[in-house]
Amino acid sequence: MITVKEAAELLIAQDNLTILCHRSPDGDTMGSGCALYHGLRQLGKGVRLLCADPVPPDIAGFAGNIEDCCSGEGYIVAVDVADPKLLGSLRAEYSERVELVIDHHPSNTGYSKNTCLVPTAAATAEIVAELLSLLGVTITKQIADCLYIGIATDTGCFRYSNTTAATLRAAATLLEQGADNDEINSVFFETKKRGRLALECSVLQSIEYYLDGRCAVMTVPMALVAQHNVSEDEMDGLSAMPRQIEGVIVGVTIREQPDSCRVSVRTTREADASAVCAAFGGGGHIRAGGCLIKSPVAEAKARLVAEIARQLGQGEG
Amino acid sequence: MITVKEAAELLIAQDNLTILCHRSPDGDTMGSGCALYHGLRQLGKGVRLLCADPVPPDIAGFAGNIEDCCSGEGYIVAVDVADPKLLGSLRAEYSERVELVIDHHPSNTGYSKNTCLVPTAAATAEIVAELLSLLGVTITKQIADCLYIGIATDTGCFRYSNTTAATLRAAATLLEQGADNDEINSVFFETKKRGRLALECSVLQSIEYYLDGRCAVMTVPMALVAQHNVSEDEMDGLSAMPRQIEGVIVGVTIREQPDSCRVSVRTTREADASAVCAAFGGGGHIRAGGCLIKSPVAEAKARLVAEIARQLGQGEG
Repeated sequence: MITVKEAAELLIAQDNLTILCHRSPDGDTMGSGCALYHGLRQLGKGVRLLCADPVPPDIAGFAGNIEDCCSGEGYIVAVDVADPKLLGSLRAEYSERVELVIDHHPSNTGYSKNTCLVPTAAATAEIVAELLSLLGVTITKQIADCLYIGIATDTGCFRYSNTTAATLRAAATLLEQGADNDEINSVFFETKKRGRLALECSVLQSIEYYLDGRCAVMTVPMALVAQHNVSEDEMDGLSAMPRQIEGVIVGVTIREQPDSCRVSVRTTREADASAVCAAFGGGGHIRAGGCLIKSPVAEAKARLVAEIARQLGQGEG
Repeated sequence: MITVKEAAELLIAQDNLTILCHRSPDGDTMGSGCALYHGLRQLGKGVRLLCADPVPPDIAGFAGNIEDCCSGEGYIVAVDVADPKLLGSLRAEYSERVELVIDHHPSNTGYSKNTCLVPTAAATAEIVAELLSLLGVTITKQIADCLYIGIATDTGCFRYSNTTAATLRAAATLLEQGADNDEINSVFFETKKRGRLALECSVLQSIEYYLDGRCAVMTVPMALVAQHNVSEDEMDGLSAMPRQIEGVIVGVTIREQPDSCRVSVRTTREADASAVCAAFGGGGHIRAGGCLIKSPVAEAKARLVAEIARQLGQGEG
């Protein structure tokens, strides 16, 4: 494990760098990656940013031009990538060769020789903000936007329990550095497409309750997603919903895939989402985890409810 | 207009005080009122807190014991009360006699001889935090909770455009002073009753679009509220929803009342909610306003859409 200062020293010594983000990029991996890209460019370095999936359009609108300007691949840095599996299609080529990891996930597998892990940080962007400051980078509006996106999206706009005083102070500084929180919040938290809303109403009405109402399971059928023409990155906020229902301590969202179920688990302080997901080969944080179950929906649901019942220490009452 | 420091000097000179909150109390008026109550009690003063409506149970759980311990009514202070009309049933007795107002609403009518108005503050609680610090009050966990509730509820948990660097810093300090943001967010932003959720789905599915999709109108019929057994203070988040739909710049929520319609208007930066509401005798902020229209729903809707069309400068396209 290395400190943020040591990570800064490693970066400053390089002339060319490749930044890796995780697949299905969210605001934190991409916001952190783009902020680091612009910061290193400002220092005159050759940089490129790679991700197995395209940059989501809502993030691209803030991140500006992220063109490759690296001579060769250079020094390889992964941001917000807890496990080399999460590199997706870049895994085979890069997973053994990541030279520096900057991450906040306690579940980070330590796959790189240099891991700058700050598990108390609400977002990797919180660490990158400190890193860029140590590197002497001037925080432009564009960099501030990218970092604010990382922090805001990973904290549910400061609503999740990972939000600390340090998180709020980092965000305050980014506002002073020009981050447009009004526009960012409008894009990431305040805008729903009509199709997304229709899908939301439909799946909310189909929520099933188990374990005396302590577990709520919401199922998102593929056909419904197609019917309402909802894209992958519009689905994000959905998984938070089952847990928000009064009395629910474990909220499960099952998204049907062609040959499997993509599962998201959210918990209150009474339960451990990462433990539930670990039972199915997944992981995450204590309040939010994910896993992939290679079964049809009905079977995945039954297995999940049984595991949650076991972990809550009771039968399916 | 007086400064926060002058307001502190007025308060410190009193032995007994009556704190007034606005009717249908929200997190800011009640969080500010309770924080001020506990702060003044700590300084040994006799204090009571009055409100036309009962303290909502979600706030009461954090505010502790707010018993009257005032000799007579003493010095009368209103918190977060922009207009004496908002005193509700306390109006007749107190509206002419408020000696100090602490508020952040730009629309404050200036009804008191001493008005401490900080329109840049996201919440009155942000002002009260500064005031209590000037008064030398020790910020206990209870006071920090009350102030955090005020700030968090008036900013939609830091999502609305009124959130500034100062807001985030004030909230950071409150976390360090013991505010339990995890529990507060869970109660105010993360918990929905099943009935509330069912109502939400039902009214969302009935949203109507006007003016080329730039205006969305959601109607909440009384019968539906009764059917799902949803209380007044559970209705709060609902009014934000129509504005969150892509392309909508004016979101209107019409809540049917026995002999009128209670209207909430939310806007993006392209429109002025308070101007729309002012046309019907209401008011508020630029992005969020309210008014009461004494007509049946259909008529209220037609009048609102016509006024919004007028303000957006086009016919009912």
